[in-house]
Amino acid sequence: MDSCVSAAVARSEGFETALLHFSYGQRTQHRELQAFRELADFWNVQLRMEIELPHFSRIGGSALTDSRIELPEGALDRPGIPVSYVPFRNANLLAAATSWAEVLEASRVYIGAVEEDSSGYPDCRETFFQAFNRVVREGTRPETSIEIVTPLIHMTKKDIVLKGVELRAPLHLTWSCYQGEQVACGRCDSCLLRLRGFAAAGIEDPVPYAGQTQA
Amino acid sequence: MDSCVSAAVARSEGFETALLHFSYGQRTQHRELQAFRELADFWNVQLRMEIELPHFSRIGGSALTDSRIELPEGALDRPGIPVSYVPFRNANLLAAATSWAEVLEASRVYIGAVEEDSSGYPDCRETFFQAFNRVVREGTRPETSIEIVTPLIHMTKKDIVLKGVELRAPLHLTWSCYQGEQVACGRCDSCLLRLRGFAAAGIEDPVPYAGQTQA
Repeated sequence: MDSCVSAAVARSEGFETALLHFSYGQRTQHRELQAFRELADFWNVQLRMEIELPHFSRIGGSALTDSRIELPEGALDRPGIPVSYVPFRNANLLAAATSWAEVLEASRVYIGAVEEDSSGYPDCRETFFQAFNRVVREGTRPETSIEIVTPLIHMTKKDIVLKGVELRAPLHLTWSCYQGEQVACGRCDSCLLRLRGFAAAGIEDPVPYAGQTQA
Repeated sequence: MDSCVSAAVARSEGFETALLHFSYGQRTQHRELQAFRELADFWNVQLRMEIELPHFSRIGGSALTDSRIELPEGALDRPGIPVSYVPFRNANLLAAATSWAEVLEASRVYIGAVEEDSSGYPDCRETFFQAFNRVVREGTRPETSIEIVTPLIHMTKKDIVLKGVELRAPLHLTWSCYQGEQVACGRCDSCLLRLRGFAAAGIEDPVPYAGQTQA
């Protein structure tokens, strides 16, 4: 959902968009890839790339990429960094995105990271993206000018839902659940954050959840 | 050769080493992988990982990863950034290395980048690595403490050869050529830099070159 709303923001600012998806061994990578393709089709974006980073499964250290680590349910307000943290994941994603952006001569890389209302991942903080922007300036050609942009960084999930609705973003095509691929579980951190956001916005989540009666 | 000497430096400083290789669609990736395995075997390092980043071939924009772009020969002192520059490559390599290092609880990531005597790649400059170190501090767990270390950054190729010989690094197992996989071409930027370094050090390069009579 955050990626979708970020793309909608970029499009609303008048940019031509190129869309990038990562399969990094996360449990729901097939369902997320389906969502990516449906979003790209919805916006009729031909400039799209699907990148696989299978080494995250071998590196492990996260409940998202290592099935031996149990994914917590109902643990949203537990202090500390959750076991779903994928070590330094966003640096890997931004590095690949910046490589592509440099070849495309794109001016911006949008990422839907959220700091305050997130799960406490260190690579979702604004200071991380500020530091990464410096790396981009130092590590690309002198004539390259790419900025990492985080339009949602200080939003709550409620704000994100409302922004998505305002921009007519296809939220019904998005996928947030960490563990389900047919229906969302409604119990993992990501589902809980999403459901809390829709509830606070007073809007019904268009995505089906486990145990929910189909309309 | 630079990776090999960097690993030798790390080992000489008393660190247990984990070795990481990347196949990113570079022309000589099979030969480089062979060199990696032979180096790891030489040092008897079991903690090794071979990572594939096939998206660089699709991203393109470099003579190393796109066979349609001709690799220059004898062009070492041409000004500007050479066509062998792989866009933002080192950020991708360091991001994956840092992810692995965080799970291993390693304290350092060594990379054999060379600034002054290199081909002028922006992601080989010391300022790039300084900026990346800040990203590592910002984007990993608070208890994680990883430093990117560039022991060769201000060395010439001559210094590197001499350091390798001093540390008894297995330079005969290394591979530098950008285009040959059986014998080194002796004409690409990387071969020219390497040959120049060995000549300046007054040491014979143990690796065979095209057109050279086998001893």
